[in-house]
Amino acid sequence: MKLFSNMFIKNNILYFGGKNTLELAKKYATPLYLIDGNYIKQQYGIFKKSMEHPFIEPEIIYASKALSTKAIYEIMNQLEASIDVVSGGELYTALESGFPPEKIYFHGNNKSPKEIMFALDKKVGTFVVDNLMELEFLAGLNRQINILLRINPGIKAQTHHYVQTALESSKFGISLSSQDFPSAIQCIINNKNLILRGFHCHIGSQIHSVLPFIKAAKILLDATRDLKIEHGIELETLNIGGGFGIYYNPTDETLAVDFLSEIINFVGNYVKENKLKIKKLMIEPGRSLVGPAGMTLYEVGFIKETPGLKKYVFIDGGMTDNIRPTLYQSIHEACVISKMKTQARYSYTIAGKCCESGDELIQDILLPKVQTGDFIGVSNTGAYNYSMASNYNRIPRPAMVLIENKEDRIIIRRETYEDLISKDI
Amino acid sequence: MKLFSNMFIKNNILYFGGKNTLELAKKYATPLYLIDGNYIKQQYGIFKKSMEHPFIEPEIIYASKALSTKAIYEIMNQLEASIDVVSGGELYTALESGFPPEKIYFHGNNKSPKEIMFALDKKVGTFVVDNLMELEFLAGLNRQINILLRINPGIKAQTHHYVQTALESSKFGISLSSQDFPSAIQCIINNKNLILRGFHCHIGSQIHSVLPFIKAAKILLDATRDLKIEHGIELETLNIGGGFGIYYNPTDETLAVDFLSEIINFVGNYVKENKLKIKKLMIEPGRSLVGPAGMTLYEVGFIKETPGLKKYVFIDGGMTDNIRPTLYQSIHEACVISKMKTQARYSYTIAGKCCESGDELIQDILLPKVQTGDFIGVSNTGAYNYSMASNYNRIPRPAMVLIENKEDRIIIRRETYEDLISKDI
Repeated sequence: MKLFSNMFIKNNILYFGGKNTLELAKKYATPLYLIDGNYIKQQYGIFKKSMEHPFIEPEIIYASKALSTKAIYEIMNQLEASIDVVSGGELYTALESGFPPEKIYFHGNNKSPKEIMFALDKKVGTFVVDNLMELEFLAGLNRQINILLRINPGIKAQTHHYVQTALESSKFGISLSSQDFPSAIQCIINNKNLILRGFHCHIGSQIHSVLPFIKAAKILLDATRDLKIEHGIELETLNIGGGFGIYYNPTDETLAVDFLSEIINFVGNYVKENKLKIKKLMIEPGRSLVGPAGMTLYEVGFIKETPGLKKYVFIDGGMTDNIRPTLYQSIHEACVISKMKTQARYSYTIAGKCCESGDELIQDILLPKVQTGDFIGVSNTGAYNYSMASNYNRIPRPAMVLIENKEDRIIIRRETYEDLISKDI
Repeated sequence: MKLFSNMFIKNNILYFGGKNTLELAKKYATPLYLIDGNYIKQQYGIFKKSMEHPFIEPEIIYASKALSTKAIYEIMNQLEASIDVVSGGELYTALESGFPPEKIYFHGNNKSPKEIMFALDKKVGTFVVDNLMELEFLAGLNRQINILLRINPGIKAQTHHYVQTALESSKFGISLSSQDFPSAIQCIINNKNLILRGFHCHIGSQIHSVLPFIKAAKILLDATRDLKIEHGIELETLNIGGGFGIYYNPTDETLAVDFLSEIINFVGNYVKENKLKIKKLMIEPGRSLVGPAGMTLYEVGFIKETPGLKKYVFIDGGMTDNIRPTLYQSIHEACVISKMKTQARYSYTIAGKCCESGDELIQDILLPKVQTGDFIGVSNTGAYNYSMASNYNRIPRPAMVLIENKEDRIIIRRETYEDLISKDI
């Protein structure tokens, strides 16, 4: 397992965020999500610094679907980050954490009228409008609304097809080549209550190269330029979304920090050459802020060898707390947290406790000899683990512990059996 | 959409379990799970009748991971069915519903010591032991425990690889060819507190032919015969698990009712020819009891056409309440519940509200012209919908309404925004 800058080994034990993971596993029980708040803050600082530019101001908008909890929103507020939300539920959570509504961007391809009115009543800063029907609905409300218009740039990013969000056939955004685009512009011109702040796009997830981002930025910049030429409308912002890949395994190489400056420089040069009024470049990192800041700890139960085939290590969690391997065939790394210096020379499949063959967390991983009662640590689980967790097999969802400045505290309490039946009548 | 025996059309509107679905959608709001209790009871009766046999008694054990709620357990109790549970959470739910513990079978490849003690304290009837370590753990408790031993028969059933549970390399059960099998038998012989009731297997899910069941039964019967010959131990039961396929779309043809009699006759003949003491054949239907008894109702929000490509209908639910299409590429059928007699001549993709491209419920389905405010009904959602539901995007999980004897009542209340943050600290 690759050790990140917030991990070290002492007496054969893994430390995460400065804390002894074995002690945390015993203190809070397993399965247990860990989140390193300092690491999130550090990542945010690195992103911010990578995007320093003489005349384009960067705005970092945390894409909170990666991990939406009150405590995470509090961290984002401390950082003075903006956030995006994709549902009334995320918006409610953010507001309950005290997050300032004017710094919230409201996304989604199918916002309900109820969600829209909730967001307006709470004075949410900006709507990221996905489609013409939504735009017309907002126009009809006769309330002053800041909007970004989501464009589908028709780009094929090299990633899992479930998270390729900008194919022309994708459900998100308005294609520039469709009749809906000029109709949307006309709708905005006709309705002075809609304040178009800029164009938005989001090209996918877990992307490891700069090229698709540059392509997407170019398409939005061209559209911004054309809007000025054709309608005399000057836009002040540009939002190229998120999707910055993180390290899950050695196939994942280039990271956002390696190319954020290239993107903002490209945008700056385009703005200068074309005399645009764009002053701000927004990005929406989610996974890349919280993913590597997370780990999950599991206890090993039964171990089983199938004849001549596989050796299984069964853990006390699995696809209910991390569906990514089953859903996206994602490959996570893992370790035995109390055998960090012991040679990893046995091949295991780490499988969960669900009654489902697909519930295999990691296949064929080299580990030291594993015994019942050992604890397994899986890295990079901060994003899309808790947020996608289910109660399949009526398994309670784990607790989450935030580590900050070497203090650990529960930010999500473990579900109980009573919780599981609390909606049963 | 195929109409089942519990559906009919009146005034262009779909009736389900005798109830007007449009009225239900308006009364309870959407997304909404419907469950037809009478249909479950009817299916149970058909299964029971299909398995009538002169000297082998059938035992129907409801595999409750398909849908585990107090109300469903109450129905199973009324039917005098047995149930299986796969976790402490399912067991807790069943017991809270008043289900008799002696008729509960406790499954799972990684039962925790805490779950095992909980089940023993509650006097759960039978443990379905998955592996040698579990067997040895139970033996060490020195308590009288009824067990079934789960065998991995090494059969490849034609189904999605996530739900193929009996490949030799699968995580479930003990292979007859492994050293663990004779060790398990020796452990049982040595520990008189372990009462071996019979062998168990489960070969997969959504299986539409009798052959793999016959093959599996033969393997378990041979093992039962060999046990008698080699150790003089006579077993009285046989459990061939579940996995009986249901109709989701026209590719799904043969159903369990078509071949249950063939299976029990095969077992009966084998028992007679080999002079075994087996008196009981257990099956574990889950999906095939509750799947077709369920429907989900959604309201249509925005509609969007991508240029020359797809026409999207956005609904107020999606992969958070039915992950099957995304996870297994399952194909469900759907209809517009108030346009049942209108010609279906437009091709749509029904997509959910999640910020995820994979959140497409049904691709390229022919429907009548769909408008915002219409309600979509998706059939066959009784199994593995609510049970696998998540709060991804912080979307609250839907309510579930049980229809029985033309009465409708909420059996799972809709989650609220307050529920979503109730574990946030």
